[in-house]
Amino acid sequence: MNRTTLIENGYDCWLGYKQIEDEVRREDALRVSSRYAIIGESPLLRTAGKELAVALSAMLGHVELGHLSERQEGKQGGIVVAGVYGSSPVFEPLAEVYDFAGLGEEGYIIHSSEEGGRIYLCAASDKGVLYAVFHFIRLLQTGQRLEGLRIREVPRNGLRMINHWDNMDGSVERGYAGGSIFYKDGRFIEDKSRIRDYARLLASTAINAVSINNVNVHRQESKLITDEFLPDVAVVAGIFREYGIRLYLSVNYASTIEIGGMATADPLDAEVAAWWKQAAADIYRYIPDFGGFVVKADSEFRPGPFTYGRNHADGANMLADAIAPFGGDVIWRCFVYNCLQDWRDRKTDRARAAYDHFMPLDGEFRDNVMLQIKNGPMDFQVREPVSPLFGGMTKTNQLLELQIAQEYTGQQRHLCYLIPQWKEVYDFDTHACGERSTVGEIASGRLFGRERGGIAAVSNIGDDLNWCGHVLAQANWYGYARLAWNPDLSAEQIASEWIRMTFGLDEDLERVILDMLLGSYSIYESYTAPLGVGWMVNPNHHYGPNVDGYEYSKWGTYHYADRVGMGVDRTVHTGTGYVGQYHAPVAESYESLADCPDELLLFFHHVPYLHVLQSGKTVIQHIYDTHFEGAEQAAELLAKWDSLASKVDSGRFKHVRERLAHQAEHACEWRDMINTYFYRKSGIADEQDRLIY
Amino acid sequence: MNRTTLIENGYDCWLGYKQIEDEVRREDALRVSSRYAIIGESPLLRTAGKELAVALSAMLGHVELGHLSERQEGKQGGIVVAGVYGSSPVFEPLAEVYDFAGLGEEGYIIHSSEEGGRIYLCAASDKGVLYAVFHFIRLLQTGQRLEGLRIREVPRNGLRMINHWDNMDGSVERGYAGGSIFYKDGRFIEDKSRIRDYARLLASTAINAVSINNVNVHRQESKLITDEFLPDVAVVAGIFREYGIRLYLSVNYASTIEIGGMATADPLDAEVAAWWKQAAADIYRYIPDFGGFVVKADSEFRPGPFTYGRNHADGANMLADAIAPFGGDVIWRCFVYNCLQDWRDRKTDRARAAYDHFMPLDGEFRDNVMLQIKNGPMDFQVREPVSPLFGGMTKTNQLLELQIAQEYTGQQRHLCYLIPQWKEVYDFDTHACGERSTVGEIASGRLFGRERGGIAAVSNIGDDLNWCGHVLAQANWYGYARLAWNPDLSAEQIASEWIRMTFGLDEDLERVILDMLLGSYSIYESYTAPLGVGWMVNPNHHYGPNVDGYEYSKWGTYHYADRVGMGVDRTVHTGTGYVGQYHAPVAESYESLADCPDELLLFFHHVPYLHVLQSGKTVIQHIYDTHFEGAEQAAELLAKWDSLASKVDSGRFKHVRERLAHQAEHACEWRDMINTYFYRKSGIADEQDRLIY
Repeated sequence: MNRTTLIENGYDCWLGYKQIEDEVRREDALRVSSRYAIIGESPLLRTAGKELAVALSAMLGHVELGHLSERQEGKQGGIVVAGVYGSSPVFEPLAEVYDFAGLGEEGYIIHSSEEGGRIYLCAASDKGVLYAVFHFIRLLQTGQRLEGLRIREVPRNGLRMINHWDNMDGSVERGYAGGSIFYKDGRFIEDKSRIRDYARLLASTAINAVSINNVNVHRQESKLITDEFLPDVAVVAGIFREYGIRLYLSVNYASTIEIGGMATADPLDAEVAAWWKQAAADIYRYIPDFGGFVVKADSEFRPGPFTYGRNHADGANMLADAIAPFGGDVIWRCFVYNCLQDWRDRKTDRARAAYDHFMPLDGEFRDNVMLQIKNGPMDFQVREPVSPLFGGMTKTNQLLELQIAQEYTGQQRHLCYLIPQWKEVYDFDTHACGERSTVGEIASGRLFGRERGGIAAVSNIGDDLNWCGHVLAQANWYGYARLAWNPDLSAEQIASEWIRMTFGLDEDLERVILDMLLGSYSIYESYTAPLGVGWMVNPNHHYGPNVDGYEYSKWGTYHYADRVGMGVDRTVHTGTGYVGQYHAPVAESYESLADCPDELLLFFHHVPYLHVLQSGKTVIQHIYDTHFEGAEQAAELLAKWDSLASKVDSGRFKHVRERLAHQAEHACEWRDMINTYFYRKSGIADEQDRLIY
Repeated sequence: MNRTTLIENGYDCWLGYKQIEDEVRREDALRVSSRYAIIGESPLLRTAGKELAVALSAMLGHVELGHLSERQEGKQGGIVVAGVYGSSPVFEPLAEVYDFAGLGEEGYIIHSSEEGGRIYLCAASDKGVLYAVFHFIRLLQTGQRLEGLRIREVPRNGLRMINHWDNMDGSVERGYAGGSIFYKDGRFIEDKSRIRDYARLLASTAINAVSINNVNVHRQESKLITDEFLPDVAVVAGIFREYGIRLYLSVNYASTIEIGGMATADPLDAEVAAWWKQAAADIYRYIPDFGGFVVKADSEFRPGPFTYGRNHADGANMLADAIAPFGGDVIWRCFVYNCLQDWRDRKTDRARAAYDHFMPLDGEFRDNVMLQIKNGPMDFQVREPVSPLFGGMTKTNQLLELQIAQEYTGQQRHLCYLIPQWKEVYDFDTHACGERSTVGEIASGRLFGRERGGIAAVSNIGDDLNWCGHVLAQANWYGYARLAWNPDLSAEQIASEWIRMTFGLDEDLERVILDMLLGSYSIYESYTAPLGVGWMVNPNHHYGPNVDGYEYSKWGTYHYADRVGMGVDRTVHTGTGYVGQYHAPVAESYESLADCPDELLLFFHHVPYLHVLQSGKTVIQHIYDTHFEGAEQAAELLAKWDSLASKVDSGRFKHVRERLAHQAEHACEWRDMINTYFYRKSGIADEQDRLIY
């Protein structure tokens, strides 16, 4: 396929460079960047140079490898000079303007020289230079002025990770975009070119870590840390390394049994510990910069330390000790709860589980352990409160876990731009140390002075030609990474960047897609489960409405709707006490029926359908209104997209149109099923007398 | 495995012969049957002789092949003489007592000579002799007196068929007893010994027809009628032939396209018809007594004549013409309905579909077509009315279709002896020609003077060692066949026979198991979907309670429960009009809220929860009562079985115990989920104030 085809079927994502159409802009750009020079030599600098060359030649139609002496030789035009600070005297003047000391391994400077003849892409390390290069390319793509650049960027989060839930049989758990790009039929895919393209896309957004197998580690995947597969893993790690990304593996907690032939996986057993030390040594022989282990233990039928009467600190620390000498980390997931609950039992509350399990262990984890905590206490619902572990634990490294894969948010068949949801999470004030104790500040490690921290998220990509199933779902992947770098970016800024990079510069087009993206999360929420109660989806695959789908299940996921009302009483006073896991001002607001935010009301309270929300509407009328409006808005998304027929290439236009048409139809299914269910149960008529079946 | 092991793990089913323990009985038996003689020679007579030898030697500990002249030579004891009437003068005297003319191909005589020295097993054909032999063995097994036998049996149904829903990948659709005994990995299983054992079990109950592949005919199975697989099919047909059983195949209606390479399957297309004629000729080249085709067309995404604007008579007749010259039949299923219904649409009624489709075609089908009609209008629910096609059609051959596989009746994990349900179906009076126009009389062909008719049922066997998953589910398999032979047998008689043959002669044991079997259908009904409304199961696999599981589906399976009441209005006056498909007295009873039988009330009427049943209870109280009682009774089943610990071998005891323990627990799940659902919806308290969650 040629470049245009790759762009039009979505394969190139936001790196589908096209020649800058506006002549004035192109001339301006040529003036300052028709030549470039990479100072120094390293694999990452080579990558940086290659990327710069590809981007400049595609966008400007012309680019030359330049030399710093050329200006004296009478060459016209500016030059882009990229390199590590200290590697050449040419960067020395920058030290007068910028504090290089604080850049760290990943920060960078983008600076236009006063006279306009040079643009410096400079960093304290070659990885920073690579990021500067991609930033500079983005400036070109998004039509920014290239004069007077004074940019200094330092990532807010140390770890910016993507988790893959890929299985070696080629399937992707909760994958909605085809099969795995890594595996097929129990082995690695021979042709690694797609992995390289993927690494490049990740690097362009400064992702620096990736785990390449499902946290549910099955038999075959357990062997990834053995000689059988380590040569293959090393090849993949090598590809990611060229783009500044460290590779991690999910491991089976019971590996000593599963592949070690031992009878136990007791973390306090000396032989178990020794086995893991040897395993770590083996891995680092193949992959000297291996990132570490991701572990889902004692969760949803996965083995873990509980089997041996040990706790999660025992389990995590044992692995941490094994890997510490090599510089690796252990990422231990906090998604631990009783998945064999009894729906009759209203005392046990799954929402409490992570906090109840991990809070008592705060401070007991090694320095190279990070606890990976899902944003909410349940499981990636469209609306949940923030996990109270953030702000609860103060002496433990924490990672915020998000889900880019739209498991509960439309499975990449519905448009649901998730950045607004994630912004709310980042910005949520836990009040752990008074005001401004946001989740963002905690995850990064800053609030409690932790050295390690950051963000991880479940990938939404697969081997569909367009990576994400839905072309517009690429915005979630892109936006996740951008937000991980800088949580202060707004959802709108990110969307705007992404639209320009993906579809080009057209004001009307940008306005329409921006409007679609920014409205989509709220639209999706409005026609699905109401007021934070969650679930109401079909079991197993989690697609489509089913109000009682999880109501009588073992998964701890109930709404308790009866003919009078619905919702889960999680208050301290009369309910499960979950609210007590938050700090005072937050807990008080959630505890109070009057103060609890509408959008979380049913998460925290069981109320009659005629309870009046802060909005002034009753719960039941809110349900009817949002569902009628949501389905209408879903139909409008399609109409809005249709207005772009002449502005988007036919490949992506048709593809997105198909998805939006399905969404519009499926939203009606949601609307009708939810409305009918609650009308049948409550018997309360819609004030506007609309059609409820 | 030795014989005892095979008995104790259930493999031998009701043919697990053991030596008669009671000495007096054994001596009596030896006196009349220590020797046997088979007169004449044919494959079926060889089978008969072999079976007689095996049974007599096992039960009597001693048996000799006798000669008719032996008595004169001074041999002691009686002799069993088996053969076809007319093949030897020895049978001539029987003609004075019996009318042989009416025996047909399958009837037989069992007669003790006056002086007691001989027992004659005599028939008009060798197949009848085989059936007589198995009947005689049953007399021995069940401890009947062998003196003065005067038995004349003629089957009431011409076709007594078992349908297998086996796929060539080895799976069994709706199979609850392991994989297929016929196929694995896309081919026939090499070792055919299990098929032979199966044929023998079938013959012992006089089953005379079997179809060996799923009515949903997928790609690989479509090729069963081609040279690729016909040699294998012929081998299997040969095994069944030795036991008097004709083999049928389910065929893909679109075979001309799927395997014929043609562009159409239009039944009126001459080339299509020619293709099928050739296909039939090919089949009969391999299998001269091939039974015919079973066809599921235009149903649940299967292809059919509708695609070409033709009707079912067009489709069936085309196949019938192709196969008629060879003596084959077409069994055309009437399970045709819109499986893409909209739950919002209350006018379309799936229950009407079969009648609406087929009644207008009555009289248009060829003589060698039989329409196979499920017992009820929906799909094998625990309680449905009888299909109105029985009594509707008068000029068409009809087969009654039952389901031995317990798809909706506990999947062979719950005990549910189905003979009482089937008895109700057989005995249901359609009033098509005034009183006594029963379904049994219609299916057999007698009521409307049809030459062809009979019974078919979906098998409940698989490759589990005990065939049925649940040892006690063997009683359904056995009972289905016995009832097909003679629908006048009572559920109790059949159960009693089966218990004695399966577990031996012990009065206590018989009483307990009889009680368990006879109560089980009513118990299962009581804790599952109430009052004939059906469904309320988990989608797809159909196991376990889910009240709204099919409520918002496309399958036309709704209960319409709201806070006031529930049920489907199928009356002529205010509902879907389905009731109008019955004859006057039946229709009147169903139409009337006062007269409609309680157990079908919600199938025919939408009523408030406080509607008072004929039983005097309200609907809601009936739901509560039956569910509390049903769960209790399920627990009692376990207790009853436990009382047999010393009377049943440990193999079968433990196995059944495990299933009953699960049933008892699962019945509580049913009870609680159904009660809670309706309590939450109705808000009406249980009069007895029992625990509803």
